[in-house]
Amino acid sequence: MNVVIVNTGSELMLGRVLNTHQQWLCRRLADLGHVVTRQVAVADTGSEIQNAVREALSRADLVITTGGLGPTSDDLTRELIAELLGKKLVKNPDVLAHIEKFFAQRNRPRPAKTNVETFVPEGAEVFLNATGTAPGLAMEIADGSWEIGDGKHNAPSAISHLPSASQKWLVMLPGPPRELRPMFDHQVVPLLKREFADEIFICRTLLTTGIGESRVQEFIEADLQPLVACGLGVGYCARPGAVDVRLTAGGAGAPEIVREGEAVVQRILGANIFGFDDDEIEAVVVGLLRAKKKTLALAESCTGGLMANRITDVPGASEIFLGGVVSYANSAKEKFLDVRVETLAAHGAVSEAVAREMAVGAREKFGSDFALAVTGIAGPAGGTPEKPVGTVFIALASAAGVTVKKFHNVWDRATFKSVTATQALEWLRQTLSA
Amino acid sequence: MNVVIVNTGSELMLGRVLNTHQQWLCRRLADLGHVVTRQVAVADTGSEIQNAVREALSRADLVITTGGLGPTSDDLTRELIAELLGKKLVKNPDVLAHIEKFFAQRNRPRPAKTNVETFVPEGAEVFLNATGTAPGLAMEIADGSWEIGDGKHNAPSAISHLPSASQKWLVMLPGPPRELRPMFDHQVVPLLKREFADEIFICRTLLTTGIGESRVQEFIEADLQPLVACGLGVGYCARPGAVDVRLTAGGAGAPEIVREGEAVVQRILGANIFGFDDDEIEAVVVGLLRAKKKTLALAESCTGGLMANRITDVPGASEIFLGGVVSYANSAKEKFLDVRVETLAAHGAVSEAVAREMAVGAREKFGSDFALAVTGIAGPAGGTPEKPVGTVFIALASAAGVTVKKFHNVWDRATFKSVTATQALEWLRQTLSA
Repeated sequence: MNVVIVNTGSELMLGRVLNTHQQWLCRRLADLGHVVTRQVAVADTGSEIQNAVREALSRADLVITTGGLGPTSDDLTRELIAELLGKKLVKNPDVLAHIEKFFAQRNRPRPAKTNVETFVPEGAEVFLNATGTAPGLAMEIADGSWEIGDGKHNAPSAISHLPSASQKWLVMLPGPPRELRPMFDHQVVPLLKREFADEIFICRTLLTTGIGESRVQEFIEADLQPLVACGLGVGYCARPGAVDVRLTAGGAGAPEIVREGEAVVQRILGANIFGFDDDEIEAVVVGLLRAKKKTLALAESCTGGLMANRITDVPGASEIFLGGVVSYANSAKEKFLDVRVETLAAHGAVSEAVAREMAVGAREKFGSDFALAVTGIAGPAGGTPEKPVGTVFIALASAAGVTVKKFHNVWDRATFKSVTATQALEWLRQTLSA
Repeated sequence: MNVVIVNTGSELMLGRVLNTHQQWLCRRLADLGHVVTRQVAVADTGSEIQNAVREALSRADLVITTGGLGPTSDDLTRELIAELLGKKLVKNPDVLAHIEKFFAQRNRPRPAKTNVETFVPEGAEVFLNATGTAPGLAMEIADGSWEIGDGKHNAPSAISHLPSASQKWLVMLPGPPRELRPMFDHQVVPLLKREFADEIFICRTLLTTGIGESRVQEFIEADLQPLVACGLGVGYCARPGAVDVRLTAGGAGAPEIVREGEAVVQRILGANIFGFDDDEIEAVVVGLLRAKKKTLALAESCTGGLMANRITDVPGASEIFLGGVVSYANSAKEKFLDVRVETLAAHGAVSEAVAREMAVGAREKFGSDFALAVTGIAGPAGGTPEKPVGTVFIALASAAGVTVKKFHNVWDRATFKSVTATQALEWLRQTLSA
């Protein structure tokens, strides 16, 4: 089965927003066994959208468009696709009632501009929008029919005379993620299960740290070769401080092949594997702390709350996370973490001694089993010859005492924070796993 | 000028990673006056990559590919494009020396797998990789020549016989963002300036809050109409709690037309505009605090450090941000923020009274001018009939006293944190702007 995603929106082509639909839809579809073949993004102009949809229909069994269904003047997808397919737009009373109710519940008058959202291509299945106004739309399309309708509102009867051995589906979804996602899960998935046979596709990603991408492949490729010959796909993705190893297979034997591949990688790279699939290091750490019934406190300077933010993104974090102090000012280090004035004066805020006192202070004041402390120079300003931008001290305090490590992370400010937080959490993960 | 981006990588089609290259490259190219016409993503397979590049070359003056230049077995872009164009891969001594140096500086032996990175299509311009090993590549291509070379390592002399009235450029960039971005800025931009005439394109985005998308257009469209007739493009993008209004124009008159459009939107929606272009609310707040020489402290429960993290993402935040407490456990609220045991017992941690004491406590203990406090139920667990998941109290303390607002934010956990942090920061922004 061939699947093409067409993302519409001039804001995408101008680089003003990140296209999160691609990843989300590709992931959901792969989990259903339908790996997306191609994704295309175009601006909100008539010829670009029609060309992209025409090409997608010519190569795919399923085409999913995103965006352009809303009420404003640049929302053109519905009209352009109806025109391409030679379908009239007809007023849908269910959609009108739904939009009336949406605004009534919010005690706001229904804007006249939402009228356009009540018109749908004739014959389309309508997905009422549970979290917004614009409905999603799905149309079964006979192969080749979009060539007939192209550019004119012509008679739909012409289409039924075409050979229709091959049926395709075109699904149009609204652009806002909070509307698209529940609509896909609750309204599109049932349609896919109804219209397309289930396919088996397995994807397992092993997340490694501490070895470069070339070495990772060198270590495992010979042992994986017999499985590759049986249909195992192996992919590598390098990220700052980590390399993902991705194992894939399709068909009836897929679960077995991927399981065997995973066993091979585990045997060779076990100690360097920190998680699987969507695991984030913070979720692994929270899971380990919960399993061991241990608590954590944080003292953050240069990471500025990112570590606490990542830990608290994990559902259930409140069981093990007592809290943190973002001690940006020196006075906050003294008042909240009992860092001594003399230590700050003698060594400076970015120093091994201050990191040590921050971790010990956080552990004592929060009464936690473990405390991580981070102090460093994120940049772009604030570096000195002795302590250049990127200098970081990370301290880990526990019942066993306190240890400090020094790192040098030269990145932009946001990546610096992210890499530093990952180093600290990975250190705690290793300590908890030991 | 027609620009097409081709992103390669099976991890994209499987939805395992987010395609940040699209936004970044589209943005950079638009700023140079070259608006990307189309972006395509395909898996790491021979036919998909060659088809996508062939189609891109047929419609574009400039094609930029990302990914597939590395050392592992799924890095196929260089070989596939050389094959498509009928170019031989030849060993490049500069690339070899560069990679040897890269590993020598890190005291690591050069992996044999990096050999493939030293082979480049004959005649290609080579961009040595300042932050990695795989070089970027650029090739000037005669119109139609990729039809000849398709699929065979045939004689390059065949190409020179083709009509070459129309020249195109194909630029191949490595996949890791930390390698791609500096390479584009320092090595590709000079090539674009050398080979393509400068074009004028202006994009200005006004960021509004507090009005729905339909209403925003209703308010401004009539007054913008005369400018639209002169070439002004107007786009709308709805986000949680915000609507972006995007004004664009090209050509010599563009700066004037966009400036006039901005004045119209400012006149009508002024109070609802919280920023422009890439402005983040946290950067606006940091800017206002710096301008007024006021300081800020935070007390976060349900946002778990996200507010501190966003504030500290802004360079220069240390001038105004004293710090924050992530008071996840009740004991942390008592110990660090002086919330009274009786208040917690009588009202519960998620209450107006506790939010008030958190803000007052943070302001007093940090000694700041302003303090924001947030307490709420992020979910998925923890809700009660009286206080369902999504209940949030935000408190703002200042010399003028303390005020508490109640919100009900029903989202997934991560969006809940983000929306809540934005509400708190927007409240502070309005207070500082009043």
